[in-house]
Amino acid sequence: MKKPLILVSNDDGIAAKGIRALVEMMQELGDVVVVAPDSPQSGMGHAVTIGNTLRLFETDIFQIFSGVKAFKCSGTPADCIKISKRFALNGRKPDLVVSGINHGANTSISVLYSGTMSAAIEAAMEGLPAIGFSLCDYNPEADFSHTRKFIIDICRQVLKTGLPKGVALNVNLPAKSDQPIKGIKVCRQAKAKWEEEFDERTDPNGLRYFWLTGSFVNHDKGEDHDEWAIANNYVSVVPCQFDLTAHHAISLLNAEWEVLNNKRMEESGSHASTN
Amino acid sequence: MKKPLILVSNDDGIAAKGIRALVEMMQELGDVVVVAPDSPQSGMGHAVTIGNTLRLFETDIFQIFSGVKAFKCSGTPADCIKISKRFALNGRKPDLVVSGINHGANTSISVLYSGTMSAAIEAAMEGLPAIGFSLCDYNPEADFSHTRKFIIDICRQVLKTGLPKGVALNVNLPAKSDQPIKGIKVCRQAKAKWEEEFDERTDPNGLRYFWLTGSFVNHDKGEDHDEWAIANNYVSVVPCQFDLTAHHAISLLNAEWEVLNNKRMEESGSHASTN
Repeated sequence: MKKPLILVSNDDGIAAKGIRALVEMMQELGDVVVVAPDSPQSGMGHAVTIGNTLRLFETDIFQIFSGVKAFKCSGTPADCIKISKRFALNGRKPDLVVSGINHGANTSISVLYSGTMSAAIEAAMEGLPAIGFSLCDYNPEADFSHTRKFIIDICRQVLKTGLPKGVALNVNLPAKSDQPIKGIKVCRQAKAKWEEEFDERTDPNGLRYFWLTGSFVNHDKGEDHDEWAIANNYVSVVPCQFDLTAHHAISLLNAEWEVLNNKRMEESGSHASTN
Repeated sequence: MKKPLILVSNDDGIAAKGIRALVEMMQELGDVVVVAPDSPQSGMGHAVTIGNTLRLFETDIFQIFSGVKAFKCSGTPADCIKISKRFALNGRKPDLVVSGINHGANTSISVLYSGTMSAAIEAAMEGLPAIGFSLCDYNPEADFSHTRKFIIDICRQVLKTGLPKGVALNVNLPAKSDQPIKGIKVCRQAKAKWEEEFDERTDPNGLRYFWLTGSFVNHDKGEDHDEWAIANNYVSVVPCQFDLTAHHAISLLNAEWEVLNNKRMEESGSHASTN
């Protein structure tokens, strides 16, 4: 039987510990090709490189794993997925795209800032089954060993049953602790937010500069969201989509908006002014 | 009566023609504060500056407009919204946040890559009524005059009736042509995609590099989406949300996924392995 083809990317950069852990796990499931940023790209959201050039070089950084083909790219995680098609996969279509394992949580609203998830969502746009994995531990030397069973189980499941069209999974895994992980919960994204603060400093030339800091605040009292799952030592699985339309708001605006009368007048033959 | 407070940002940078047009229009509606990137940030998606510092300087770039307070920021559009609260608005809450006018379309899937919309979505996360405006014309010297009436009408409407919680508007406007704009359509995001190509070149040192190019392909046959509206000379208004959860997929995964049996076994008392 032909082994599945698995494309691996991330946003912490190709030298991060998290992607090495993921590559090792994926070797158990299929043929692995890696295309990952050559430098850390945390917080890049769904950025792509426009108005600038991209570099792509093959690398033997994963030579400890036999048969893994790996490339480092100067661009963002979304760029990595875009460029992989022609220059790393040579037109072959991967059976699964995985991104991570991110050093740090991508629960709740953080999914929007996450480079890890942008790689997965970019792959979903291409019609590929895709999963972003994040460990709720920001330590660059974090221990990923306890996540192995869950990541392999989830990937096996997706390789077997696929994913709904236009859906990528956002999987967060609890940090290693003395409590075993309880299981997997399919969740919604929690309604929480970052409350920013800016640490204001003065540079040697007397000019001020800022560090963006802040704290994560969760007012969501539900027990069906990703923050709840992680707080209760479950792996959270949030199915994510790239149709941002707030469909419920369409009829509401159509009903409420006087400004749409222009359109209706126009349609019934009386011309609205366009100046 | 107190004039509304309007915060203006963009992704083409504070020196772009589009933001100058928007500032001029907003002057008619309220007190204007601008916080915009000091350099072009197209395609930055919802990126934020992590692991690096931010600069913010007041500027008189809009001195032709009386009473406009303006700041240029070294960060992304999302950073601009975050930093504005304390350092430009001094804690005052804007009545409206507008971003743009972008030089180029942000219809369909482009909303995910759009820095223009990330500023609006960031503001919506803060609970503020927010709108991103984009002109379907990539020319840096594009003519914005024909959009004035529509942009003012839409802003007036939002100042009057607000927006549903967690919703920001993605407004695209047809390029100037000899046909008058027909009106405004509230739409969904079209299911279209970019088909990437990479223009491969060799640098003076003999190393290859790439330019990301590609074409936009729309297979969506609906007449209720933003691509249709623009193609038919309407202003498109797509309400966008930042809850990416594919809610319809939750029950589906709960029904299909064997791997969730671990959880159920655990809940009924038999412990799943965590190795």
